[in-house]
Amino acid sequence: MAATLCFQQPSKPISYFPHPKSKPSPPLTTKLSFFRCKASVQTLISVEPEPVFTSVKTFAPATVANLGPGFDFLGCAVDGLGDHVTLRVDPSVRAGEILISDITGTTTKLSTNPLRNCAGIAAIATMKMLGIRSVGLSLDLHKGLPLGSGLGSSAASAAAAAVAVNEIFGRKLGKEALVLAGLESEAKVSGYHADNIAPAIMGGFVLIRSYEPLDLKALRFPEDKELFFVLVSPEFEAPTKKMRAALPTEIPMVHHVWNSSQAAALVAAVLEGDAVMLGKALSSDKVVEPTRAPLIPGMEDVKKAALEAGAFGCTISGAGPTAVAVIDGVEKGEEIGERMVEAFMRGGNLKAVACVKKLDKVGARLVSSISR
Amino acid sequence: MAATLCFQQPSKPISYFPHPKSKPSPPLTTKLSFFRCKASVQTLISVEPEPVFTSVKTFAPATVANLGPGFDFLGCAVDGLGDHVTLRVDPSVRAGEILISDITGTTTKLSTNPLRNCAGIAAIATMKMLGIRSVGLSLDLHKGLPLGSGLGSSAASAAAAAVAVNEIFGRKLGKEALVLAGLESEAKVSGYHADNIAPAIMGGFVLIRSYEPLDLKALRFPEDKELFFVLVSPEFEAPTKKMRAALPTEIPMVHHVWNSSQAAALVAAVLEGDAVMLGKALSSDKVVEPTRAPLIPGMEDVKKAALEAGAFGCTISGAGPTAVAVIDGVEKGEEIGERMVEAFMRGGNLKAVACVKKLDKVGARLVSSISR
Repeated sequence: MAATLCFQQPSKPISYFPHPKSKPSPPLTTKLSFFRCKASVQTLISVEPEPVFTSVKTFAPATVANLGPGFDFLGCAVDGLGDHVTLRVDPSVRAGEILISDITGTTTKLSTNPLRNCAGIAAIATMKMLGIRSVGLSLDLHKGLPLGSGLGSSAASAAAAAVAVNEIFGRKLGKEALVLAGLESEAKVSGYHADNIAPAIMGGFVLIRSYEPLDLKALRFPEDKELFFVLVSPEFEAPTKKMRAALPTEIPMVHHVWNSSQAAALVAAVLEGDAVMLGKALSSDKVVEPTRAPLIPGMEDVKKAALEAGAFGCTISGAGPTAVAVIDGVEKGEEIGERMVEAFMRGGNLKAVACVKKLDKVGARLVSSISR
Repeated sequence: MAATLCFQQPSKPISYFPHPKSKPSPPLTTKLSFFRCKASVQTLISVEPEPVFTSVKTFAPATVANLGPGFDFLGCAVDGLGDHVTLRVDPSVRAGEILISDITGTTTKLSTNPLRNCAGIAAIATMKMLGIRSVGLSLDLHKGLPLGSGLGSSAASAAAAAVAVNEIFGRKLGKEALVLAGLESEAKVSGYHADNIAPAIMGGFVLIRSYEPLDLKALRFPEDKELFFVLVSPEFEAPTKKMRAALPTEIPMVHHVWNSSQAAALVAAVLEGDAVMLGKALSSDKVVEPTRAPLIPGMEDVKKAALEAGAFGCTISGAGPTAVAVIDGVEKGEEIGERMVEAFMRGGNLKAVACVKKLDKVGARLVSSISR
């Protein structure tokens, strides 16, 4: 599924204004109350669509990027954990603009300035793609994910917002376009990478083949098979940039061959629905995990505990600090999660929480809507 | 399909004696007429099997290893090109031993000393696995492949021989065991690598996940879809060892990520039978092909010509010098082959021959047999 998009020039840039209650932002080069959208996306729709709903509520799932040997090009979505966006047509908001009216949930320290907020940036980019000039919108973000957990928190917000804008205007854009909108947000938060935003929007497993042009490949896990992730998040901050700085710039050829073959096996395991092979491949990274695991106290013990408890594989989720293990049933997953929580305390002196979640095969979606 | 084998100690080592007409070999540490097999394989069958045929004829296909980003862990078999072995129960050969009685075909410069011949080494290893002590065998090898072409010539001989020994004794060994027997041969010729011998024996595409233990994954190209390879072999010697020495020992992380993602895409393309995606992935190597292509005169022009003529992708087959392009039909393949042959002459001043072959989905097989 290559996102070969036919771009058209917008007739007017999408803009936004910050919520009156938002905290003061550092001075920028232009007026605080009105910025031109810096998004590089362009209008894709020739006739500005009208809203088909007065309000929509969307959900976007948490995501596990990297998956061991899939560093920087593989990710998948996990069900039942993620962010919600409620988006309304709001006559009090200037036409073509968006307001972030409220942020609730696991974190409230996010800016309500749309250009400094993942959901806001993605919503603006989606409005720009749709060429929205005649309608003002207001957005509420409900965070179900903590920041910096390695579970694609920013991508979940961006995905829920992009899908909400698309849905309220009658779903004119395809998923590839929404990934591009979400990428505008990701680029400002943690770098131009699609391994969280693509699965957050598309669901399932997604392989990122290239960025120029963006070329995404959905990898379908068989419908009749289930896959469970044990997600164990310690109370520890592992900032993406620091974790990225820990990576080597050159790697031995022998590790390249090894990791490539494991990534290849991981893809085969996904397409064939082989949870055991998938776990083994996910667990086999010799390039990234060995440099990052020592930066997360207890991670090596956690992996060992997961495997000893019967997990098919275990690695770091995204840039961490969450550890992710793979299994084929909920009960076994809960047992594995307990062992992993204990290991975080024993090996890293860190409190941690565990949950067991299914693979999300759907991606960001409409939860409810109010027709006009 | 992991080759987890239960090894048993042989009660007597397999041995061989060279054909009386064979050229003198350099002195070895033991008697020329009788060597202990150096194969590391062990007997897998508790009761020595009896031959079920007096004679068998087998075929093993040519193979394309590496496939661009699949360097050292991916290979596939191509139909209608390969080596034949005729194996006979021979009362004139001492029990438990093997004689290479004749070598015909594209090359006759191979040694008939079984320990210095790919077919001989693989046959001895297979006899050892079967625990053959009571029967002597004689083997004729008919080469359909030239040496050093990058089409798995040594692997085809080894595969045909291993399968012949297994068939004549009633097919007691599985394909994984036969790959191990063939690996004994490959290790002595070009290094312990399975990306030719595994597809030569198993057919289709094979992913080598690990060597310790040997862990092979057959990747099934859909039965209802066809895939064609345009194989263009120039008159040029590209010895595997020299091509291997050209490789970097360290590679940039950015190339690692790129190549891994392309290898992952290649596997997805194989399993989904997507020839276009497969070609694109095969054509995208940034690690190995850029260092090897300049060592084969005209290769860069050949790749360009193939793509311009409509090939879905093109790269070096194995360590070269054969160029391999991918397409979905014979006629288009023949046209592409002509353009590639012209480009070898134009860009490298090399004569070349082209052929278009289907993916071989079967691997080494029994062609005919004479019952006892």
